[in-house]
Amino acid sequence: MTETAVLTIRRAREDDLSAIVAMLADDPLGAGRESPDDLTAYRPAFTRVDGDPNQHLVVAERAGRVIGTLQLTLVPGLSRKGATRVIIEAVRIHTDERGSGLGTELIQWAVERSRELGADLVQLTSDASRTDAHRFYQRLGFVPSHLGFKLKV
Amino acid sequence: MTETAVLTIRRAREDDLSAIVAMLADDPLGAGRESPDDLTAYRPAFTRVDGDPNQHLVVAERAGRVIGTLQLTLVPGLSRKGATRVIIEAVRIHTDERGSGLGTELIQWAVERSRELGADLVQLTSDASRTDAHRFYQRLGFVPSHLGFKLKV
Repeated sequence: MTETAVLTIRRAREDDLSAIVAMLADDPLGAGRESPDDLTAYRPAFTRVDGDPNQHLVVAERAGRVIGTLQLTLVPGLSRKGATRVIIEAVRIHTDERGSGLGTELIQWAVERSRELGADLVQLTSDASRTDAHRFYQRLGFVPSHLGFKLKV
Repeated sequence: MTETAVLTIRRAREDDLSAIVAMLADDPLGAGRESPDDLTAYRPAFTRVDGDPNQHLVVAERAGRVIGTLQLTLVPGLSRKGATRVIIEAVRIHTDERGSGLGTELIQWAVERSRELGADLVQLTSDASRTDAHRFYQRLGFVPSHLGFKLKV
C-alpha cells in the first residue's frame, strides 16, 4: 500500500471549512440550502461546534485531500435506563469517492468512536428521498424503526 | 381558574426522577426497557444531563404533580448555513392527562424555548408504531420528511 492510500479520520480544523461546506453543498438536497461560495455563516457555527465537548466533527483525509465528513453529538439522557446516545449528522462523501467503500469505513469508525465515548445507542435520520442511503445504513446494521420529523422555527 | 389548574413547565430536579422514570415506563415501548422500581442507573444519568449546558430536561407540573416531561438537546452544526438544531427526546404525558391538550402545550412550549435558545430547526423521531403521535406532530406543523435509524452499540 502506498502512502497516499492511507485514510485518516481526524477532528476537523477551521481550515477544512471550505472543503466540508463544498461537500455539504454537492448533494441534491444540500445544493439548495448551502452557500459554499460564502463561508460567513459557517465560521461562527464552526466555533460553536469546535468549542462544545459533546460535538465531534471529523473529516476523512487521504493524500492531503478532505474526502468525507460527519458530525457526532453525544446526548446523555434518562430513557432506556439512562442510555447515552450518539446522533450522527451531516454525513458526506466527496463525489469522486462515492462507491469506494469510504462511506462504510466512515460509519464503522463513527460507531466504534461512539462506543469509546460511552454511547449505548447510535441514531441518525436520513431524508425519505435518499433510498440508497437507507439501504446503506441497513447493511451496516441500523434499523429504520422511526419516523423523523422536522420543524423550521 | 383556580390555583390548582396552573401548569408550570420547569427544569427537572433530582427529586422528580421517580415521577419521570414512572412516565417513561408507563408506555407500550418503555415498559420493556425501563426499571421504575430501581433508579440506580438513572441517578448518574440525571447528573450527566443536569450538568450539561446543551441539555434541557423539563417537567410539566400541575398542583404539585409531575404530569409530563421532555428533553431538549441543543446541537450546533455546519449544515444549512450553520443552523443550530434542537432535538426533542423522551416526550411523555402522564396516563391521566392524555387527551387533555397537555401534549400540545408541552410541544408548543418546547418549540418556543428552542427559538429562544437560538435554534433554526427542531427535530424529533417517533417510533413507526406510534401512529397517533405521528398525527399529533403533523398537526403541530412537524414534517415527517425523514427515516430514523438506530443501532445498539
